[in-house]
Amino acid sequence: MELQRAKGTRDFMPEEKILRNEIVSTLKAMFERYGFYPIETPILERFSTLSAKYAGGSEILKETFKLTDQGGRQLGLRYDLTVPLARFIAMNPTLKMPFKRYQIGRVFRDGPIKLGRYREFWQCDADIVGCKDLIADVEILQMALDAFNALDLDVIIKLNSRKLLDEIFSYTKVPQEKRIDAILSIDKLEKFGWDYVEKELTELGLKEETIKTLKDIFSIKGENKEIIENLKKILGSDLEGLKEVEEILSYFEDEKRILFTPSLARGLAYYTGPIYEVFLQKSEITSAVAAGGRYDEMIGRFASANAKREIPATGIAFGLDVIMDAMKEKRKELPKTKARVLIIPIGTKKESFKLAVQLRKVGINADLAIVERSIKKQLEYANALNIPYVIFYGEEELKKGKIKLKNMQTGEETELTKEDLINLLK
Amino acid sequence: MELQRAKGTRDFMPEEKILRNEIVSTLKAMFERYGFYPIETPILERFSTLSAKYAGGSEILKETFKLTDQGGRQLGLRYDLTVPLARFIAMNPTLKMPFKRYQIGRVFRDGPIKLGRYREFWQCDADIVGCKDLIADVEILQMALDAFNALDLDVIIKLNSRKLLDEIFSYTKVPQEKRIDAILSIDKLEKFGWDYVEKELTELGLKEETIKTLKDIFSIKGENKEIIENLKKILGSDLEGLKEVEEILSYFEDEKRILFTPSLARGLAYYTGPIYEVFLQKSEITSAVAAGGRYDEMIGRFASANAKREIPATGIAFGLDVIMDAMKEKRKELPKTKARVLIIPIGTKKESFKLAVQLRKVGINADLAIVERSIKKQLEYANALNIPYVIFYGEEELKKGKIKLKNMQTGEETELTKEDLINLLK
Repeated sequence: MELQRAKGTRDFMPEEKILRNEIVSTLKAMFERYGFYPIETPILERFSTLSAKYAGGSEILKETFKLTDQGGRQLGLRYDLTVPLARFIAMNPTLKMPFKRYQIGRVFRDGPIKLGRYREFWQCDADIVGCKDLIADVEILQMALDAFNALDLDVIIKLNSRKLLDEIFSYTKVPQEKRIDAILSIDKLEKFGWDYVEKELTELGLKEETIKTLKDIFSIKGENKEIIENLKKILGSDLEGLKEVEEILSYFEDEKRILFTPSLARGLAYYTGPIYEVFLQKSEITSAVAAGGRYDEMIGRFASANAKREIPATGIAFGLDVIMDAMKEKRKELPKTKARVLIIPIGTKKESFKLAVQLRKVGINADLAIVERSIKKQLEYANALNIPYVIFYGEEELKKGKIKLKNMQTGEETELTKEDLINLLK
Repeated sequence: MELQRAKGTRDFMPEEKILRNEIVSTLKAMFERYGFYPIETPILERFSTLSAKYAGGSEILKETFKLTDQGGRQLGLRYDLTVPLARFIAMNPTLKMPFKRYQIGRVFRDGPIKLGRYREFWQCDADIVGCKDLIADVEILQMALDAFNALDLDVIIKLNSRKLLDEIFSYTKVPQEKRIDAILSIDKLEKFGWDYVEKELTELGLKEETIKTLKDIFSIKGENKEIIENLKKILGSDLEGLKEVEEILSYFEDEKRILFTPSLARGLAYYTGPIYEVFLQKSEITSAVAAGGRYDEMIGRFASANAKREIPATGIAFGLDVIMDAMKEKRKELPKTKARVLIIPIGTKKESFKLAVQLRKVGINADLAIVERSIKKQLEYANALNIPYVIFYGEEELKKGKIKLKNMQTGEETELTKEDLINLLK
């Protein structure tokens, strides 16, 4: 039997998983710093939930892993954390609002495998449910800035409003039924340039005049204030979408990292207000490291079949894989263990075990060399795992009541009392 | 559409997930304290891996969720973390040994739903691969004791050896082909008593004489040393299994929590040496909270089809769900958020946002009341979430340069400078 992983899945080696854990715990701490609390929902969901009318849509449904339980029930593996959130909110109508949940977990998509696309990957989501006020979006944007500060990654945030895009389409007379496709084309502007987008819009059947005005609008560049002024000159000053952007920016007076970007569109159909994507600066990586927006209709439609209950919501998803790539880019060496010291027994198995227990009791991460082999081999092991210190613990050391410590980086060896050893390692 | 979860799955509310996170991070810290490092393997595995000859066995395979990807490949959801570990070791032959990995994650079993049995649940495993010396088992037992200390749960550990069970069966002439079934019966002794077990052993076709001697052996009670002496009187003193138990106990001279229990058998077929189960004391909960043992053959057989490579291994699995039940038993109130303070703006939305950002910058978990509503409602919200402090931030406070803080437990209100506020909340 040839052993293989399932296609599109990965194993993470200790050095990668340690880094992933570090990123996750930084995000978790930041979510909690902002008053978000965690929930957990299952990976297995009823297929009827995942395929509900206002859920992810037909594109994503094509990529959903389907399975059946022994009772013949149709199930699926969740493809995101937003539809399970909607189901959770709908099934718990007495939750206190606003409900500020974060959730970190795996999602599954049975799609084509391209570079950087996997069939099993992690999402790290924070959403605020039950608040229409844009201060909720402001809180999430500030949290994103703080989170990337904490991860020591330089970012900018591109900000737009779905309402503004809609108003631009009204002004340029893009027919209602072509707007979702037009949004998907406009979204490619920064990546592929105007010529590419113009071709797509022509194929979509938009009029020459419409395309020309769209080009004028989406060619506006400059500082946030200049863009707003120039848009007002073309579209007038009474636009809901522009007001949204202005209101959000008013909270960020001295913040240079939020860039109003009228062509930012985001792929998903369910957005209704502010939308944003976070990008790295000074990096080879061009994909967004986080993205989100407001979706005021989706959860309410989920919760009430007749669409009468409005449950506003806004949220962000952090991309663990791309953040991990960015962190790898910056670090030369990834630690393979969290152990500070390897204790090498030299004929003192039981005493070495006791020493290990003592060090661990005071909070020192200590590994014990449990396979008997030559000192050379033990040192090779410590080196391979980048353990910073080793202790040689033999009869001689036991007699003297001293412990011999080797600094693996400098090669320096010192004899210490147990007390001094603990102080040095802590 | 009626919304439902998949059968046998659960949602966890914030107060439950906060507790789960706490348990997981205590276990994770203890694994790292003992020099274990994390890996991550996918939930999706090839079905051929999960159904390999030396994997979980036919019982567990019946409960494996099967699915097919778009390329027609047969996949399954992992039912434990041990088979994926064996696959990982087999696919990475250059790993440094001993390989001390921990892994915390979900596993899936499409079995009958009983009280406390779920189709999607978590396992927290720590295993040492590549060390035949029983000091590896000693390290794991000591880690279990330290982990439950850290969780503030009183436990005892029942210890036995599969080799000893085999030797008892040889002595009492239990035929080789009936030993796995006999093990499963003996394992029920503590729960159902001797009469129940005797009936099963009779049905299995064991001779009256055999059953009588088994009863004599498994009725031996007392301190570890007495049990060992009495067993030696019946079985002789040259038993491998007894030597294993004695060697392990020699590391735990002053430890009263490890109880040699000759009838402990453990359900899984692949154990080859020491086995153990951890139980709560002073608790209503009778299920094991952790369990494990040595399995020296399984991984090697996985790695080499012709069974020539020996890869010894020993490991423990902590049961997150039962540990969570035990923690719930002890705690009256579970926090619903990690927020220390709720800032209530009174006509000062922007200034309150700035105050929130300042508190968060110095490490205080601060929630901001983003839905405009009466102070009474805001206080109800803070109460419902058990947030210990609220800040009232109005024009008056802004003018005075002071902040009004209310202690939600005592009801006490104080006016503080920003500096004093930060010191108090930190």
